[in-house]
Amino acid sequence: MVVVDPDVRRRELAEAVWRVVLRDGLIGASVRNVAREAGLSMGSLRHYFGSQAELLSFSLRLVGERTTARLRALDVTAPPRELIEQVVHAVLPLDEETRRETQIWLAFLGAELTTRGLSKLNDEVYDGLRHLFGLVIQALVEANLVRPELDLEQETQRLHALVDGLAVHAVTRPDRMPADQVKALLAHHLEELCEPT
Amino acid sequence: MVVVDPDVRRRELAEAVWRVVLRDGLIGASVRNVAREAGLSMGSLRHYFGSQAELLSFSLRLVGERTTARLRALDVTAPPRELIEQVVHAVLPLDEETRRETQIWLAFLGAELTTRGLSKLNDEVYDGLRHLFGLVIQALVEANLVRPELDLEQETQRLHALVDGLAVHAVTRPDRMPADQVKALLAHHLEELCEPT
Repeated sequence: MVVVDPDVRRRELAEAVWRVVLRDGLIGASVRNVAREAGLSMGSLRHYFGSQAELLSFSLRLVGERTTARLRALDVTAPPRELIEQVVHAVLPLDEETRRETQIWLAFLGAELTTRGLSKLNDEVYDGLRHLFGLVIQALVEANLVRPELDLEQETQRLHALVDGLAVHAVTRPDRMPADQVKALLAHHLEELCEPT
Repeated sequence: MVVVDPDVRRRELAEAVWRVVLRDGLIGASVRNVAREAGLSMGSLRHYFGSQAELLSFSLRLVGERTTARLRALDVTAPPRELIEQVVHAVLPLDEETRRETQIWLAFLGAELTTRGLSKLNDEVYDGLRHLFGLVIQALVEANLVRPELDLEQETQRLHALVDGLAVHAVTRPDRMPADQVKALLAHHLEELCEPT
């Protein structure tokens, strides 16, 4: 008998949720459909996740973990301005993998109104990103790059809203907002936050 | 027998779709559920909409029409800077009514990947707003308010992404991004686009 690491199995199931959501929408992500997608019985799936809510929460949380992993892999010795662009790029849908992750996020966001338990989870995603953008602005301040008259709290919120708006546009209208344009736009935004040098 | 204006009836049905989507998600917006919500038979509903896709498209298009109606009602004799804030406010979820409309948009956006026909419709919404923000930036230029070095195409895209990001935050996290904060943030953004006076 093959013993499977439960953690590995849970991740596989979460990835099965992703495939189902990308193909059929959240509407299709019943426990039955996900079990079939993963090639497991319903009973086996229930061994790893007690409910559909748990399964869906875990699969959205995995999106956050992927983002965190990309952030941890960044070269923190890069100059502040460059590092900050890398940070912002790490949370944006600029390639196939991150595009899929953003589509999952968007599917959950559109459904949270009516799906119990998702709201709290989306709060976590929101607060995590807000915190990250706070650190970004703070890093610019510490490097003496930011225009001194700026309201840092407001700039954090503005950067967060701009990034989320760009993420929505990049995944839903990739022909009108391709990755290069997203990057150029953010570079321009960060440029404006910084003092003329 | 009461004769109902077909146009009025179609709008009533679209509003029934809205109520169902806000309560149960797009997942709940079957022809059967919408007919029940509107107090009509399935047969009567089919008299007005040949398919679920037609019904859903019409109900999303109605969101766009409401926005257009708000834009038409604006006082175009207001000073450019003020008028432009009014325009931006008209497309944002700043009260209960517009919050509902944005929630509908978000539900459709999250589902469009998998719901045939929605993609084209979301293109219309996107292009309509992009055009509107182009007009906003153009109006600022004509009033000689915009900093001359700005790339107008890029500023149009940035304003559009910022507004959509704020719309997402305002409806999904109203406690963290209340209407006053949305307005203050946009005022600051428009201020930055304009020349120091």
